[in-house]
Amino acid sequence: MGDNNVEHLENVEERCGVAKGYLKSELFVGRKKKRLGDRVGIRQFGVNYTVLEPGAQSSLRHWHTGEDEFVFVLSGELVLIDDNGEQVLHEGMFCGFAAGDGNGHCLVNRSSTAAAFLEVGSRKPGGDTVYYPDDDFGPIDR
Amino acid sequence: MGDNNVEHLENVEERCGVAKGYLKSELFVGRKKKRLGDRVGIRQFGVNYTVLEPGAQSSLRHWHTGEDEFVFVLSGELVLIDDNGEQVLHEGMFCGFAAGDGNGHCLVNRSSTAAAFLEVGSRKPGGDTVYYPDDDFGPIDR
Repeated sequence: MGDNNVEHLENVEERCGVAKGYLKSELFVGRKKKRLGDRVGIRQFGVNYTVLEPGAQSSLRHWHTGEDEFVFVLSGELVLIDDNGEQVLHEGMFCGFAAGDGNGHCLVNRSSTAAAFLEVGSRKPGGDTVYYPDDDFGPIDR
Repeated sequence: MGDNNVEHLENVEERCGVAKGYLKSELFVGRKKKRLGDRVGIRQFGVNYTVLEPGAQSSLRHWHTGEDEFVFVLSGELVLIDDNGEQVLHEGMFCGFAAGDGNGHCLVNRSSTAAAFLEVGSRKPGGDTVYYPDDDFGPIDR
């Protein structure tokens, strides 16, 4: 057992945007992710620290058949868009999307400052399909 | 799909301490937990918002055979105690304990102010056993 099970955000590589060929990739240019769970050896779920710059979006609106997702807002203001409509989220607010709920969702930063959140998603390799209700994209088996 | 998938910390019941008969229950009197994942319908993993008042401890030192655990420090100062020794954690620091790592761990607040963190643990009903290396307690099958 080494001591690589403890880390600080500052030391984790930041991944910006998505590959050029990805659908609507311009929406994700201001999306910055740090993979925290991977960094400390966690495999059963992923934990990302994600920053959305003004105008950036978390993902295409989507839902999972097999994986639960959870978001906790750390700072700034985000708009959650899902089947319930739109809702503004602030620090201390959180939301969940249970596997198979069919509730396509994404987060957008419509404010003038960056917003940060933690996102957790279970990992079910071979046991998840992602649907994108607004886009001619997918479903994607994972 | 209702709109019960979004919530604010303020609206979640706080659970303090542990049952009286629990081993060393005095260590946990200043431990306050809010079950966020449960509140928004997440079942594959648990997410707790936990506050440790000065002197309080997160749990007996323990490790899981089947469930991954992850902690992200939101505020204050905590001491992580595990097989690597002791390490002070501040805001923005995080740690992971992969299933089966055998690394018994707990957090203690030795500072003079409260500290808060998010903890995530996968749920493997019937597929997890918890070991407590420092105490005559367990192992506990879950």
